[in-house]
Amino acid sequence: MIAEILCVGTELLMGQVLNTNAQYIARRLCALGVRVLYQSVVGDNEKRLEEAYREALSRSDLVITSGGLGPTVDDITKKVAARVAGKELVVREEAAQMVKERFGQYHRKMTENNVSQAMFTEDTQILFNPNGTAPGAIVPLLDGKFIVHLPGPPIELEPMFRDQVEPWIMARTGMVLCSRYIRIFGMGESEVDMRLQDLETGENPTLSPYCSLGEVMLRATASARTEEEALSLLGPLIEEIRRRLGDVIYAVDSDDQGSLARAAVSAMRDRGLTVACAESLTGGRIASTIVDIPGASEVLRGGFVTYQTQTKTQLLGVPEQLIDECTVVSPEVACAMAKGAREKLGTDLAVSATGIAGPDGGTPECPVGTVYLGIASRNGVRAHRLQLSGSRDRIRTLTVKHALHILRKEAETAPAMT
Amino acid sequence: MIAEILCVGTELLMGQVLNTNAQYIARRLCALGVRVLYQSVVGDNEKRLEEAYREALSRSDLVITSGGLGPTVDDITKKVAARVAGKELVVREEAAQMVKERFGQYHRKMTENNVSQAMFTEDTQILFNPNGTAPGAIVPLLDGKFIVHLPGPPIELEPMFRDQVEPWIMARTGMVLCSRYIRIFGMGESEVDMRLQDLETGENPTLSPYCSLGEVMLRATASARTEEEALSLLGPLIEEIRRRLGDVIYAVDSDDQGSLARAAVSAMRDRGLTVACAESLTGGRIASTIVDIPGASEVLRGGFVTYQTQTKTQLLGVPEQLIDECTVVSPEVACAMAKGAREKLGTDLAVSATGIAGPDGGTPECPVGTVYLGIASRNGVRAHRLQLSGSRDRIRTLTVKHALHILRKEAETAPAMT
Repeated sequence: MIAEILCVGTELLMGQVLNTNAQYIARRLCALGVRVLYQSVVGDNEKRLEEAYREALSRSDLVITSGGLGPTVDDITKKVAARVAGKELVVREEAAQMVKERFGQYHRKMTENNVSQAMFTEDTQILFNPNGTAPGAIVPLLDGKFIVHLPGPPIELEPMFRDQVEPWIMARTGMVLCSRYIRIFGMGESEVDMRLQDLETGENPTLSPYCSLGEVMLRATASARTEEEALSLLGPLIEEIRRRLGDVIYAVDSDDQGSLARAAVSAMRDRGLTVACAESLTGGRIASTIVDIPGASEVLRGGFVTYQTQTKTQLLGVPEQLIDECTVVSPEVACAMAKGAREKLGTDLAVSATGIAGPDGGTPECPVGTVYLGIASRNGVRAHRLQLSGSRDRIRTLTVKHALHILRKEAETAPAMT
Repeated sequence: MIAEILCVGTELLMGQVLNTNAQYIARRLCALGVRVLYQSVVGDNEKRLEEAYREALSRSDLVITSGGLGPTVDDITKKVAARVAGKELVVREEAAQMVKERFGQYHRKMTENNVSQAMFTEDTQILFNPNGTAPGAIVPLLDGKFIVHLPGPPIELEPMFRDQVEPWIMARTGMVLCSRYIRIFGMGESEVDMRLQDLETGENPTLSPYCSLGEVMLRATASARTEEEALSLLGPLIEEIRRRLGDVIYAVDSDDQGSLARAAVSAMRDRGLTVACAESLTGGRIASTIVDIPGASEVLRGGFVTYQTQTKTQLLGVPEQLIDECTVVSPEVACAMAKGAREKLGTDLAVSATGIAGPDGGTPECPVGTVYLGIASRNGVRAHRLQLSGSRDRIRTLTVKHALHILRKEAETAPAMT
């Protein structure tokens, strides 16, 4: 099967939006053994879009579009596809229901133009959109080829593709796909790459690294006739990766939802531990990242955002004298913050962060990017120094990740509570 | 001038690499007033690449390529372009010098195949590559059109484009471009679109909507010979939009960095107001979103993450009895939280959030998505009810946006402090 990716949207042509959809779809198709020979982007222009459809269909069996399914005059993807298919768009009851339900859920008034989101050709297979109002579609053409319509926002496109389009493709190709997600914190991309280079060239299973700030995730994917077969291809690869990377691997998941926060929350929950946060430069982001994880309420009691210096004394009882003597960005103050938070909330663990996120406020002794994390437990309190660099946001994000990393390790080494 | 972006590389087709080059080039061209009607990606295949060149040249004046300038057999971008131009590739002395110098700098031995990096047609304008071995090129064609070759790595492509290609383009077009960003909260995309439909079809200025969760941003762009001229084209359009949309517009910026948080922080800072947060379901995200804005320290004193019920009493002094009587997700508790936070930290304003983010915890009376925001000021305290829907993350994100929106409005109506 040969597929082609056609992304529709003037915002892409103008470079307002980074086209992550093309990469996502290409990577998944590649893993499904579907060849992709072309990707293109066209704007919201009927004539050019029609030409793009005709050309893509002249050289591919399957054309996957993203974007242009909304209710506005700009949203022409379906209309032009129907013209190419030589069919009429009609209101499809099941689609109209989906759109209505969404608007009901969102408590938004369904304006008249939204009916267009429920219009498809009679023989179109409609795809449910759990994350937005616009349904997707699989449009059959007379010559046995297909056009697949996906919504533009990645949060809508990705689950729709994974849960509805992939099974449809697999049914046609007779393959199943299994993935495992190996999550790494504390080893740089190039180091990981050097150690795994030879494994990354494999055809089946495939291994692709994805980097996010301070982290590397490896996606190992095997395709086979059955899931068992695919899993048996993945096992040895994952063992080899564990052997080569060791304990920088903090999770191996069967979904891509893993995160340092999830690992930290499970580590604490498994041991019945509670936690409190005391945050200065992160301003509440450590706590809210923990709250991102469903079930966090069993673990996180609460936290303090002590952004201005005096609030560290007011809320956490950090002695003013200590701040004067050691400065506010110091291991001593980090420890006092964690200790204070743990005592105020009576938790098993507490983590604190104080530092300089910039852009201003750095000094020669304490440059921008200097951060101290405090970790308090029944075994006492200690501080970790981080020397980070980059933008304010980068420094704060990395601080949160290190804090979650330290929390997880602390929980894993803590004796289980009874 | 009409340009087209043609990215060459199998790694792009397979989704191994995210195509940031297309966005970078598109954005810069857009800012230069050059229209981009198509972007495409093809693999390292001579036949398909030649077709792609011929097609792109049939509809554009300028084709900008990225990738495939290296020394390997896969690097066919220049070779195929020369064939399309009907010219021969020859070793160009100046280019050979550049390549030699680079290898010298990198202390690497220049293997024989690297000579190919110095081969261009006789009439090609060679582009210096300060960050890599492969020079870029501007290749003139017989019909007055051009092919521009850029290297694939962004660190090489971006400075080469900015410092050498942009001046070359500006010399040919003589246009400047100006944009204004109109930010909207509290009106859905389709409602905005219904009201502005006729304005969105204009050629100059252009008006394009971009949606993010709960928000719409309009980008108004005018091109002219001078900046003054462009701005004078934008003024009346923006006035008309203000007239039609009213106070759902919370910012009109000259950059696209605006946000509800930035608007709220400036509103408070302009009036010398301080704020505290008391957060349950948002778990610190309101405070950390405020801290995202440089200069937040003048405004945000601190905050409380009172995630577990008892912490609302412990940290904010919310009476247990009130919680028992009214339940924790109630306007009364939201008000008590805001009042408590304002008193504890002695701020001018305080905002609180209590609600059910799900996925569990909903009841018939109080379904998932029920949220109360409390806002306390010297004028007293009141609560707002939100009924949100969707994922846990969606509910929490929208809660933060509503809280920032309410803070901004409260600050704007507050009498300036002295």
